[in-house]
Amino acid sequence: MNDLTDLEKLCIHTITTKPWTIEESIEHYARAGVQGITLWRDALENRNRQTIRKRIQDAGLNIVSMCRGGFFPGDTAEKRELAIEDNLRLIDEAADVGAPHIVLVCGSEPNISLEESRQQIMEGISRIYGHAREKGVKLAIEPLHPMYADSRSAVNTMEQANDMCETLCLKNVGIAVDIYHLWWDPHLQEEIKRAGKSDNIMAFHTCDWKNPTTDFLLDRGLMGEGIAPIREIRSWVENGGFKGYVEVEIFSELHWKKDQKTFLEEIIQAYKDFA
Amino acid sequence: MNDLTDLEKLCIHTITTKPWTIEESIEHYARAGVQGITLWRDALENRNRQTIRKRIQDAGLNIVSMCRGGFFPGDTAEKRELAIEDNLRLIDEAADVGAPHIVLVCGSEPNISLEESRQQIMEGISRIYGHAREKGVKLAIEPLHPMYADSRSAVNTMEQANDMCETLCLKNVGIAVDIYHLWWDPHLQEEIKRAGKSDNIMAFHTCDWKNPTTDFLLDRGLMGEGIAPIREIRSWVENGGFKGYVEVEIFSELHWKKDQKTFLEEIIQAYKDFA
Repeated sequence: MNDLTDLEKLCIHTITTKPWTIEESIEHYARAGVQGITLWRDALENRNRQTIRKRIQDAGLNIVSMCRGGFFPGDTAEKRELAIEDNLRLIDEAADVGAPHIVLVCGSEPNISLEESRQQIMEGISRIYGHAREKGVKLAIEPLHPMYADSRSAVNTMEQANDMCETLCLKNVGIAVDIYHLWWDPHLQEEIKRAGKSDNIMAFHTCDWKNPTTDFLLDRGLMGEGIAPIREIRSWVENGGFKGYVEVEIFSELHWKKDQKTFLEEIIQAYKDFA
Repeated sequence: MNDLTDLEKLCIHTITTKPWTIEESIEHYARAGVQGITLWRDALENRNRQTIRKRIQDAGLNIVSMCRGGFFPGDTAEKRELAIEDNLRLIDEAADVGAPHIVLVCGSEPNISLEESRQQIMEGISRIYGHAREKGVKLAIEPLHPMYADSRSAVNTMEQANDMCETLCLKNVGIAVDIYHLWWDPHLQEEIKRAGKSDNIMAFHTCDWKNPTTDFLLDRGLMGEGIAPIREIRSWVENGGFKGYVEVEIFSELHWKKDQKTFLEEIIQAYKDFA
């Protein structure tokens, strides 16, 4: 039983084992003693969400989070409206499947300034907030690495996410702390502390930054394969009062090529050794 | 003459037209009305530095800077000593060729923490400072994009470069502001202002951040090809009292494949239109 006890905080994102169907991920995670699962929206395509919810419960897994909403900025009102509608649908999907929160990759519109993108993000979050509250789904702002500032997120540091939470001042809006995006930031420790004080740390994502990293998106490292101070950052997050799961979120062409059962064993070992 | 007047602040880094020899770069830059040249060390390999210096003067170009020193951190004392020796040689080379300063890509050692790397960078700069003063060569710390924190530089924001300059408190140590590395930073304007107040802006590098960017190193954009707020950042730098050159520094497999005369024409047009 010792192995299972060790894994009590381990959650895996379905995208980490992308070659598997959602059913395969549920089965293999549960059998390996993984405790939590974060659902990527694509994994639910053409599935009955109630069926998946029940399958996850029956397997003894907890649904930790739903990835991902956001992408609020747009250079036309029409684009921004489409984003709102999409986020509202995602909230429904998260509620159906029983995910306590959705992760927001906030977006960045290249044709407007970063400041303007951030304004549109705050407007977008405010627009969907009412529906999220009604459905009992929380919203986690995920600051992304500055290398994504042109496209995926105009929120690029923990400080910006904290500022945004303070400005919005909405009860169920918090932050997803992701090591991959934030490990380099000299203000990370103090800003995690700040988020902890406001009880705003809603999720914690782990993986590693490889040296060298060869792709902007699909070359994340398994914990221990890179140089991020993974345990140190986890200790900051947990010292900040966070008691939730350690979510393994890895996009990697390299790891996706492997037999995913082997990869799952490697994830569990890396979690024990380095996370 | 109007064209030449327009170009009075235009400097080009030899690496921008990498397929050319140093002699070809000098000839073509001068003929096109470019006023300044920044020398990359590799362009001087197997050359007599006095000859190059004279050739540049005869062509009517000004030597703006020498790229690049730094890479101070190392996980052994031996590696750090090698870096010091290399930087001392670079200072000699810069003095020989008449470059007023060298740019420091400070380095980052993956086997130690970023804080420790920064300590070693400060120690390294202090070690070479005496020789640099003696030779009349200034030192410009260049903060690099956080995507290089694992390897090329543990100095990743303008704030960190300012902090470093204040801690070192050395007369001839300043900062090279590079749009590519810093455009995303929400504190950039205030930190440029801070550097300006201390008279610490020593160089200004321009290019563009492409959306999407497909390579970590060799996919920089010509001004106007991307989404960085180039003119706005230049105005911050110049409002901060900087009167020096606008240095075009582009590493791009795409542009290097072109006929470099055509590329030079494009650089000049992009400089007029977007820089």
